Amino acid sequence: MRVRLDIAYDGTDFSGWARQPGLRTVCGVVEDGLSTVLRAPVALTVAGRTDAGVHAAGQVAHTDVPPGALPDDPARLIRRLGRLLPRDVRVTRVQVAPAAFDARFGALRRHYAYRLATAPHGADPLRARDTVSWPRQLDVEQMRVAAAGLLGTHDFAAFCRARVGASTVRDLQLLDFQELDDGVLLARVSADAFCHSMVRSLLGALLAVGEGRRTPQWVAGLLGQPTRSSSVAVAPAHGLTLLGVDYPPDAELAARVQRTRAVRGPVARPLSSAQPAGSVAAADGPEQR
Amino acid sequence: MRVRLDIAYDGTDFSGWARQPGLRTVCGVVEDGLSTVLRAPVALTVAGRTDAGVHAAGQVAHTDVPPGALPDDPARLIRRLGRLLPRDVRVTRVQVAPAAFDARFGALRRHYAYRLATAPHGADPLRARDTVSWPRQLDVEQMRVAAAGLLGTHDFAAFCRARVGASTVRDLQLLDFQELDDGVLLARVSADAFCHSMVRSLLGALLAVGEGRRTPQWVAGLLGQPTRSSSVAVAPAHGLTLLGVDYPPDAELAARVQRTRAVRGPVARPLSSAQPAGSVAAADGPEQR
Repeated sequence: MRVRLDIAYDGTDFSGWARQPGLRTVCGVVEDGLSTVLRAPVALTVAGRTDAGVHAAGQVAHTDVPPGALPDDPARLIRRLGRLLPRDVRVTRVQVAPAAFDARFGALRRHYAYRLATAPHGADPLRARDTVSWPRQLDVEQMRVAAAGLLGTHDFAAFCRARVGASTVRDLQLLDFQELDDGVLLARVSADAFCHSMVRSLLGALLAVGEGRRTPQWVAGLLGQPTRSSSVAVAPAHGLTLLGVDYPPDAELAARVQRTRAVRGPVARPLSSAQPAGSVAAADGPEQR
Repeated sequence: MRVRLDIAYDGTDFSGWARQPGLRTVCGVVEDGLSTVLRAPVALTVAGRTDAGVHAAGQVAHTDVPPGALPDDPARLIRRLGRLLPRDVRVTRVQVAPAAFDARFGALRRHYAYRLATAPHGADPLRARDTVSWPRQLDVEQMRVAAAGLLGTHDFAAFCRARVGASTVRDLQLLDFQELDDGVLLARVSADAFCHSMVRSLLGALLAVGEGRRTPQWVAGLLGQPTRSSSVAVAPAHGLTLLGVDYPPDAELAARVQRTRAVRGPVARPLSSAQPAGSVAAADGPEQR
């Protein structure tokens, strides 16, 4: 029986999502907690494999459990997990999903937020874990101009950590900035998927524009470059939060999974002759975030 | 020259505001930082001496510095303090104040917030430091009824840790509950001042009502009791944040300080034959929060 889990975490004290021997990871902690509660080994497939220090409000994962393993009332399972798990990670929702539901390959788009505190005193102490102190003048209008030029389907290789054979073509659907009342500059970033370090590299490039060190034209010129640009700084991890993941209606899940695997499997030449990929390498690769 | 400071902190890793030998306190860390930056010893007088684990978004303090000790641009001082202080405490504003400004005795009222997460999974991990997990059904309407019965000027001794000779009469001006979109129950509490543990005791009593263990009539019956009630549980510290402090216009500062000292000095029989109090005991007593 396929189960969808919605998960929130404070990434500060985790070495990212993906299990690594000897390190405290979100996947490791949640899998261990679920295995204890369900009395069976649990392996999770996740929508966005976040890096060390990155947070999530609406991470999505799936797993398969034996029929009858779930209590009738999902709230009971959530309360038990709540008592068992450390308070920096929460399973916020558990629901039975269609067999075709795939948290990773079924996702239509991912939504991220990035928080910067530009006040002279930096970040509010109660939000310092998910807000980067950036006590400098920023020309937000110029950042918006540069951001608008990045929207659409492009090869974002200049903003991605290289991964042999993985496509870096992505459809960037939203990249905007809101100036909140408390002096926080909130960036919202949505795409069908993100390659490794892409959101933080986009932010790094846009901050260079905001500080007047670079122009929107420079940012536009990065699009389509074949490899990662060493001139793009990667913004700090702790400002970044995975807000949520969108999925198609149930009837379209299987088609979506098939299409994504074809386009974004670990095979070269994106959007053209890529082959379906169901291999271990595909499941473990960092190209889908 | 009198200076007003606005201060924000995450109280999690502090042993409260007040300096204590060998302990990490907000007052100690801020005084040490200011003394370093201003190259002169600094002693702070504060509006609300918060307990261990309690946070502040808008704490207010004052101190006296030699003329010329402040840079012309306050933002410079704030940025220097920002680099020097740990990220769980920030001086958010520094301004020259009238000589009559007294952060403690000049305050008209204090505003607190208390955050409870009632969802089955408990508090959002990124807000777990300032939100208490309370994954139970609460009858918020009954809590509102009980809260309304507490408004006004009363002897809140049943809700206060005893302090010999200190008045426990307070004017409770606001005590309401908002149910936020994310499953958080936000209590807002305002009074001219609070005695020790008063907000957390009020919340503890109202939570007993919300869970159906007590009635609004029981809460009303606590008003005017001469001593602390052992039947009132004190809600956890980490849900509580001092939001801000109100002061009168400059022209009325001196009169306000004189009146507060007369009413709330460390002398028995509140609101009647109390004497002005400027003693060390008054400055150190916990009756003004």
